[in-house]
Amino acid sequence: MTPLDLSNMLSEKLDKTIRDIPDFPKPGIIFKDITPILSDPQLCEELCAAFVGYWKDKGIEGIAGVESRGFLFGPHLAMMLGVPFIPVRKAGKLPHKTISHSYDLEYGSAEIEMHIDAVSPGQKIMIHDDLLATGGSAGAASELIKKAGGEVLGFSFIIELGFLSGSEALKPYSSDIQSLVTY
Amino acid sequence: MTPLDLSNMLSEKLDKTIRDIPDFPKPGIIFKDITPILSDPQLCEELCAAFVGYWKDKGIEGIAGVESRGFLFGPHLAMMLGVPFIPVRKAGKLPHKTISHSYDLEYGSAEIEMHIDAVSPGQKIMIHDDLLATGGSAGAASELIKKAGGEVLGFSFIIELGFLSGSEALKPYSSDIQSLVTY
Repeated sequence: MTPLDLSNMLSEKLDKTIRDIPDFPKPGIIFKDITPILSDPQLCEELCAAFVGYWKDKGIEGIAGVESRGFLFGPHLAMMLGVPFIPVRKAGKLPHKTISHSYDLEYGSAEIEMHIDAVSPGQKIMIHDDLLATGGSAGAASELIKKAGGEVLGFSFIIELGFLSGSEALKPYSSDIQSLVTY
Repeated sequence: MTPLDLSNMLSEKLDKTIRDIPDFPKPGIIFKDITPILSDPQLCEELCAAFVGYWKDKGIEGIAGVESRGFLFGPHLAMMLGVPFIPVRKAGKLPHKTISHSYDLEYGSAEIEMHIDAVSPGQKIMIHDDLLATGGSAGAASELIKKAGGEVLGFSFIIELGFLSGSEALKPYSSDIQSLVTY
């Protein structure tokens, strides 16, 4: 089978496994629940292999993962690619000196932080999270990488909600965006 | 070298890598910062190999990891051991039907949740987190496993703060407690 066939098979498997939760976190939203993926270690392996296959020859020098669900596979991918994992956390959680970035949510705003010494000038970073919605948090993570002098090499997500146009929002940082399944 | 020599070498490496942050999160506390471990993919591999070597013949049927830092290595260990990963999260984060447990903190209380279908009756679960302090959150995770009918097989931590006697607090659930470095 070609890589494209394998990729389609994985997308179908993920689609069958991801659970729709209506009205979470609020009425009218259908939440994509990835916890059934975590119950299937074989599928987790396939998912990680797809990420690694895509990024292994791109000169990646670090993976930044966004708290909390970006922590589920980010460190594993970093180990498989032999690069540092850089945790991006909600404000006030990282103990050392940090740089921070605020971004708008539908109502209000959020602030995320990264350790000031986590990224070196010129270091090529891939940003990973479970879900690409509007691109707010991945864009904010990109701003942190840029503030530290790093380069945003691209993005990887398990799920992309295509109708929210997050990939358009991320293009100013990098147009290399990998999503394993798109809705 | 014997497994014990290897284990001592790993403890020393971890001790040299973990960063002490004074007065975080509040004055008088010395916080053990594990983020420098994440910067070293080789050390991450050694750390995970030590966990897997300890648990691989113990009949483990699932790993529960406590948000957020228990997500950093928990899913990787679950993949290596070929068992499900069960996320234990702060209240309100998991989208499906949950069971919850509240526990006391020094000031106030905290509540954690697990999906009601994440653990089957009789399933043997190892609970993983980065740090064992007083055992509050690992004990609360144990209560969730028990409420779901599961069995707490044991615990694994990167760091144990021995002076806080967390291992005593966890003994009613299981006395099989692995810590890679103890202070």
